[in-house]
Amino acid sequence: MKPNMRARVAAEFLGTAFLLAAVVGSGIMGERLAGGNAAIALLANTLATGAILVVLILAFEGVSGAHFNPAVMLSMALEKQMGWREVPPYLMAQLTGAFAGVAAAHMMFGLPVFFASTHARSGPTQLWSEFVATFGLLIIIRACVRFRPAMVSFAVGGYITTAYWFTASTSFANPAVTFARAASNTFAGIRPVDAPGFICAELLGALAATMQFRWLIVLAEHPTEKSQIDERI
Amino acid sequence: MKPNMRARVAAEFLGTAFLLAAVVGSGIMGERLAGGNAAIALLANTLATGAILVVLILAFEGVSGAHFNPAVMLSMALEKQMGWREVPPYLMAQLTGAFAGVAAAHMMFGLPVFFASTHARSGPTQLWSEFVATFGLLIIIRACVRFRPAMVSFAVGGYITTAYWFTASTSFANPAVTFARAASNTFAGIRPVDAPGFICAELLGALAATMQFRWLIVLAEHPTEKSQIDERI
Amino acid sequence: MKPNMRARVAAEFLGTAFLLAAVVGSGIMGERLAGGNAAIALLANTLATGAILVVLILAFEGVSGAHFNPAVMLSMALEKQMGWREVPPYLMAQLTGAFAGVAAAHMMFGLPVFFASTHARSGPTQLWSEFVATFGLLIIIRACVRFRPAMVSFAVGGYITTAYWFTASTSFANPAVTFARAASNTFAGIRPVDAPGFICAELLGALAATMQFRWLIVLAEHPTEKSQIDERI
Amino acid sequence: MKPNMRARVAAEFLGTAFLLAAVVGSGIMGERLAGGNAAIALLANTLATGAILVVLILAFEGVSGAHFNPAVMLSMALEKQMGWREVPPYLMAQLTGAFAGVAAAHMMFGLPVFFASTHARSGPTQLWSEFVATFGLLIIIRACVRFRPAMVSFAVGGYITTAYWFTASTSFANPAVTFARAASNTFAGIRPVDAPGFICAELLGALAATMQFRWLIVLAEHPTEKSQIDERI
Repeated sequence: MKPNMRARVAAEFLGTAFLLAAVVGSGIMGERLAGGNAAIALLANTLATGAILVVLILAFEGVSGAHFNPAVMLSMALEKQMGWREVPPYLMAQLTGAFAGVAAAHMMFGLPVFFASTHARSGPTQLWSEFVATFGLLIIIRACVRFRPAMVSFAVGGYITTAYWFTASTSFANPAVTFARAASNTFAGIRPVDAPGFICAELLGALAATMQFRWLIVLAEHPTEKSQIDERI
Repeated sequence: MKPNMRARVAAEFLGTAFLLAAVVGSGIMGERLAGGNAAIALLANTLATGAILVVLILAFEGVSGAHFNPAVMLSMALEKQMGWREVPPYLMAQLTGAFAGVAAAHMMFGLPVFFASTHARSGPTQLWSEFVATFGLLIIIRACVRFRPAMVSFAVGGYITTAYWFTASTSFANPAVTFARAASNTFAGIRPVDAPGFICAELLGALAATMQFRWLIVLAEHPTEKSQIDERI
Repeated sequence: MKPNMRARVAAEFLGTAFLLAAVVGSGIMGERLAGGNAAIALLANTLATGAILVVLILAFEGVSGAHFNPAVMLSMALEKQMGWREVPPYLMAQLTGAFAGVAAAHMMFGLPVFFASTHARSGPTQLWSEFVATFGLLIIIRACVRFRPAMVSFAVGGYITTAYWFTASTSFANPAVTFARAASNTFAGIRPVDAPGFICAELLGALAATMQFRWLIVLAEHPTEKSQIDERI
Repeated sequence: MKPNMRARVAAEFLGTAFLLAAVVGSGIMGERLAGGNAAIALLANTLATGAILVVLILAFEGVSGAHFNPAVMLSMALEKQMGWREVPPYLMAQLTGAFAGVAAAHMMFGLPVFFASTHARSGPTQLWSEFVATFGLLIIIRACVRFRPAMVSFAVGGYITTAYWFTASTSFANPAVTFARAASNTFAGIRPVDAPGFICAELLGALAATMQFRWLIVLAEHPTEKSQIDERI
């Protein structure tokens, strides 16, 4: 039996808040200390983001499932792994948590509570990057939840660690995160005008991954006679 | 049955000593080698601190619970997960261990055994940072102890790894550590005059997390009828 | 019973594609941001490659075994851990996946879909490096599959993390990866003319490791009377 | 029943060889690429060494116990966890493996097979560093073997990761490693004249840890009546 919805909403709020505090705060700290070397700032940002994801998923998956991400939730709901009636409270918790985390980070570094980003992230390469990043994230999550459920935290933290570097957009891969990062004119920010494109690309990536994984898992779990013959050879 | 109190005290002493040796020693080494780039020095400091926490908790949780931290202990005692009579010997072991670790590190780098830090860390952003850092640490620990007890070491090491970067104070989050770092005029130091503020913020953060988690867990374990209805939809 | 061959082929394709996207994409991003410091670029490349290997093996080992590497497959087939008839479809999936991953990365960074590398990697030290790198990889995989099967993902990710640094070739250790990296004139590329030498060295390393491990495991599992005597002393 | 001694000796040889290849090879690569920043070179060296230890222990602990270290072996033999008659073949495998690994690394980077180091590492701070480093290593190993045996690989890899930074000697903590690094005039080298001091400090550290842990574990496993009373409060 799942925990009470209020506990789950609180866990999603807290988790998304700490996720955003880590993303935005470590970006600020990294940029301040890195002496102009963007790779060193991004290494710090990567380390902090990857680690907090492992930690938050370990801590909260037992309460709320530790989604912290509307794109993940959409996929789960499409596959009937969570009820559609659970989506609105989760979504509200993720969005308010994300902004709370950004505000907490800004207050730690003496910045305005919110201030719109001027960091341009647009164009087809950026949108393609977000599509690929979110597609990969969802494939990884769905496969690990199915085959190695105890390791989901490490898979997600590891995936974002790598995706910060192999995508041109540094892999937001999360609509709630994208919204909130638009309110931070720091290393991790994104211009509000660029956010809707990112969010569309993320949702499309999540949708494509959901379809792809559905096809994969139906095949994987219904071996054809031919493949059984293969095994005997 | 728990191990003998003398063994547990020895484990807390050894663990806190190695924790401080790692924090202070890696700060010295990082600063000496980094050629003036503070981000590189902090990356080294982060890597060393995160790793030693994983290691020490793996090694000593079977003996003493591997607290190494009066703020953690306070929360445990408030929640009746350790007896109040155990607190004074643990506290003594943590404090003496912390200073022993600082001394050991200083001796490895040819520095005075103790020398007061001149590293200013004050103001509301620093105090807010320590409050957030310790609040998060305690939430993470309490949740992992409850839901993923075999993974506490990785959760704590991962949390401090990220908190070194997302808080403006680099996340001391531990009153024993704060005391001892005041006796080290190196990268990881803190002016003695700033230590009491840090410690108050840390204890308040731990207290807030304890209350928050108590509320969360009571809710999580007593699903209401309404949330059960949610599940059926 | 193993999953349907089409699902396994899709898993090998997806996994190898994300592996190459991570290797090539993070190399591009690392080089662009590192301000000319090759060690920082390689650190980023290492972090991304090590992490994606952990993630992909966790996600896909339950479907296809998560080889993503013809040299690994050759060893498995020689030791009758996979049928020879499975090799051609796996190989096709790995090769096409590798090129798809390179193309996806190039498109994320606004580069041509494919363009031949001019990065010279030749001479006996490079070939010896690839031999050692692949020998070590296969020994590690075979030993972990046998003794710690749940940890193969961490062993492979950790091994490549270290091999990027201790071999002069930065450890390709994978013929499909080598082919595809020849089509990327970026940080991770290799001149097409140098690829065949790398692939030969890799296959020889895999073969040597297979023989070595076969000898080791036969011995390990058949204790002689003498070694039993040793134990009693 | 333990595996055949020849298999165990082969595993110790292979493991120690890859350990040294990683330590020395990554030192060379790190120094070559780091553009004069010693902290970046040491970060690469740390990452490679920590990761290879995790990997090698996962792979070989099922065969030989994965010691790769005479100081560890000494402690095990003193505590009757391995027979004294097993020590000479293990020691021979570790020493020859260590030199083989150094030679393999030198050949990968186009250097002489062996050449004496001119890297001075002497004085009381260095010896104290090696004593502390090996003391900590042995405490960690003995405690994890006892309380978290499945996690020894992560504990040892994590410990050396941190010890590279918190000790002034960068933590050799292994007599076989010390011998072999004397034959490498590279980043990781040590002057032959300084090696005996290091080795003495390492053996004393191992001895002290063995005594300390013996005392700790005797106490831990024989709770006194008084500590039982503590629990009831």
